[in-house]
Amino acid sequence: MIKYPGFSFDITHKDPKSKARIGRLKTPHGEIETPNYIFCGTKATVKTMTPADLRAAKTDIILANTYHLMLQPGSELIEKMGGIHKFMGWDGPMLTDSGGFQVFSLGEGTMADEIKGRNKSKGHENKSLLKITEEGVVFRSHIDGRKIALTPESAMEIQRQIGADLLMQFDECTPYHVSRDYTARSMQMSVRWGDRSLAQFARTHNGKQAVYGIVQGGVYPDLRAESAAYIADRDFFGTAVGGCLGGTDEEMEITVHHSLENAAPQRPVHFLGIGKIKDVFKFVRMGVDTFDCVIPTRLARHGTAFLKGAPGETINLKNARFREDETPLDEGNGVSASSDYSKAYIHHLLKAGEPLGAQLLTQHNIATMNRLMREVRAAVKAGNLDALEKEWIS
Amino acid sequence: MIKYPGFSFDITHKDPKSKARIGRLKTPHGEIETPNYIFCGTKATVKTMTPADLRAAKTDIILANTYHLMLQPGSELIEKMGGIHKFMGWDGPMLTDSGGFQVFSLGEGTMADEIKGRNKSKGHENKSLLKITEEGVVFRSHIDGRKIALTPESAMEIQRQIGADLLMQFDECTPYHVSRDYTARSMQMSVRWGDRSLAQFARTHNGKQAVYGIVQGGVYPDLRAESAAYIADRDFFGTAVGGCLGGTDEEMEITVHHSLENAAPQRPVHFLGIGKIKDVFKFVRMGVDTFDCVIPTRLARHGTAFLKGAPGETINLKNARFREDETPLDEGNGVSASSDYSKAYIHHLLKAGEPLGAQLLTQHNIATMNRLMREVRAAVKAGNLDALEKEWIS
Repeated sequence: MIKYPGFSFDITHKDPKSKARIGRLKTPHGEIETPNYIFCGTKATVKTMTPADLRAAKTDIILANTYHLMLQPGSELIEKMGGIHKFMGWDGPMLTDSGGFQVFSLGEGTMADEIKGRNKSKGHENKSLLKITEEGVVFRSHIDGRKIALTPESAMEIQRQIGADLLMQFDECTPYHVSRDYTARSMQMSVRWGDRSLAQFARTHNGKQAVYGIVQGGVYPDLRAESAAYIADRDFFGTAVGGCLGGTDEEMEITVHHSLENAAPQRPVHFLGIGKIKDVFKFVRMGVDTFDCVIPTRLARHGTAFLKGAPGETINLKNARFREDETPLDEGNGVSASSDYSKAYIHHLLKAGEPLGAQLLTQHNIATMNRLMREVRAAVKAGNLDALEKEWIS
Repeated sequence: MIKYPGFSFDITHKDPKSKARIGRLKTPHGEIETPNYIFCGTKATVKTMTPADLRAAKTDIILANTYHLMLQPGSELIEKMGGIHKFMGWDGPMLTDSGGFQVFSLGEGTMADEIKGRNKSKGHENKSLLKITEEGVVFRSHIDGRKIALTPESAMEIQRQIGADLLMQFDECTPYHVSRDYTARSMQMSVRWGDRSLAQFARTHNGKQAVYGIVQGGVYPDLRAESAAYIADRDFFGTAVGGCLGGTDEEMEITVHHSLENAAPQRPVHFLGIGKIKDVFKFVRMGVDTFDCVIPTRLARHGTAFLKGAPGETINLKNARFREDETPLDEGNGVSASSDYSKAYIHHLLKAGEPLGAQLLTQHNIATMNRLMREVRAAVKAGNLDALEKEWIS
């Protein structure tokens, strides 16, 4: 029996009208209230943000990507420098993924969409993924082309060295178009990889990290249910929903439903790689506690601001209609980037190719998502999530 | 007689051993103590820095470039948005150049070096500079290729619209390799352009801006002296040293000497486009009150940190020797970027192509230069500039 002495998850409130819940997730680097949003700090930095910028935007928790860090600067170096928190100067809770998703998705660029089901065309080839066997995967580094093996054991060891609070088991991520048979065999291998991940973790852990199991099974309800039952049965601290979720909103909803109905009810639930505003409202109601997604930070770098009440959730500041717009993005966010600059100025920065444009929009989008989560938590407590959703999604 | 009611320059201390002096330069956006350093905010942003980041690095004054702003977003827009201070959120003193230097230097990329004398080879052609006549210059926009005329009158009108505190007369910047004859004729035309700049300014100014005359004359002592005497004779608020200064440190020193010996002694002296640490020590002693240079911010974006006492003034954080260096850049700078991150982390950010690397080094370099200027002012007051120079330049 694996114990997680530095961790706890307490559900403090349940929505009578849905499966939404309020929780307190305690880690060795502090406690966060859920539902909450985990921002991507891929290479030990949330792009363009200092830790102080993140705090100013009221960020509670961030993640880093094992795949990227194992290649550069290497997990041994991060351990030597005192761990990821000290290395990057972030003293709050952190999560790392297992590296698997990037191995299975980075080869071709579009594979991330493929896995998440956002792209249904077949035939995207992952050229850097060389071999998948029971032992693990062999891939080519996208940086220097060298061959690297990743196994459940090495993925856990690398995450131990990186030193985040919340870790992920190693799993296989299957794309949308694969057959039910392949998905079933893959899910069952991820189950065995999960056991190996836990065994490796048990051998080396020091009580300051906790592992999530990942529910796989593609778009097939029975496979999802089987995977979830396995995760609930093993000594994982949390449950994550991963892999292909389907191509439509409806399909995604069904997939998540079947991923969670057999999940351990007292464990925190993390939803991997999903997190538009509409997703937050939908999946909080289905019992998801934490979200992560590159969208708020990635779209910021392309000039897109998430805004409460904006049609389609966002506006594009490159649009000529903002050229003379003297209003700030949103003073309700309580952060400088949202309050102290006109849309006209940010429009100018983006048109002029000035990095400050992406910086301001990144902080703004993070602040917007953190505000969304604060308001969602308040609404779950007050029982008016439906009314809040109407304010956010017009 | 032009009056500058919102402005004053008081010399509060003179170094008995050199021409170094301490001054108080008052503008409608606050007072700064000199000698001081003016950081380049070319397109209404010091690249990667928010105004709060600049203040945290103890920045007193910044500049913006008229050439860039007239092309994008246009000076009319900036005026409409309430002026450059409001547009970019910087409430301290600001300077704009006249646009001339970029017209004469941007065409070929290397022309800036050519004008400053850093590149002595002939034959760099400025392809975007179409015509220089008594009336002014015609050039092609590097953004959209359209033909644009810039005259003393339009340069002053554009600077009025931008709305900085300290403005520059329109002048011609001649490259290093031109003949004495050309330089003489050019300098005399800049004299006439100076008169037209002042006349235009007198017609429209509201007491909230002040104009500097620019000493030209290339590397020819008599031409420099003649130009300086003209500037001193006219109603300029300040004296700027511009144009080609020579190819060696010695030549530069002679040029500056002849530019300043006929200058009005009570006016502030600005040195255009020069500002390595060694330059600051040298030219403060010759009576320069303010410096501007892209070097601290530009080199930061290439991984170079200015450091007190470093051989050659700088270190390059991309160097492999910093891979495991747990020490911060310089805790004496009193700013987060210099204190709160290891060199190993900044090295990682730079190697990984993460924008935060350039951001941290930009703030660090600005803080280093501001600290340099604070220590220089204290040393001038205490009479120990020589000892301070040895601490900075090892």
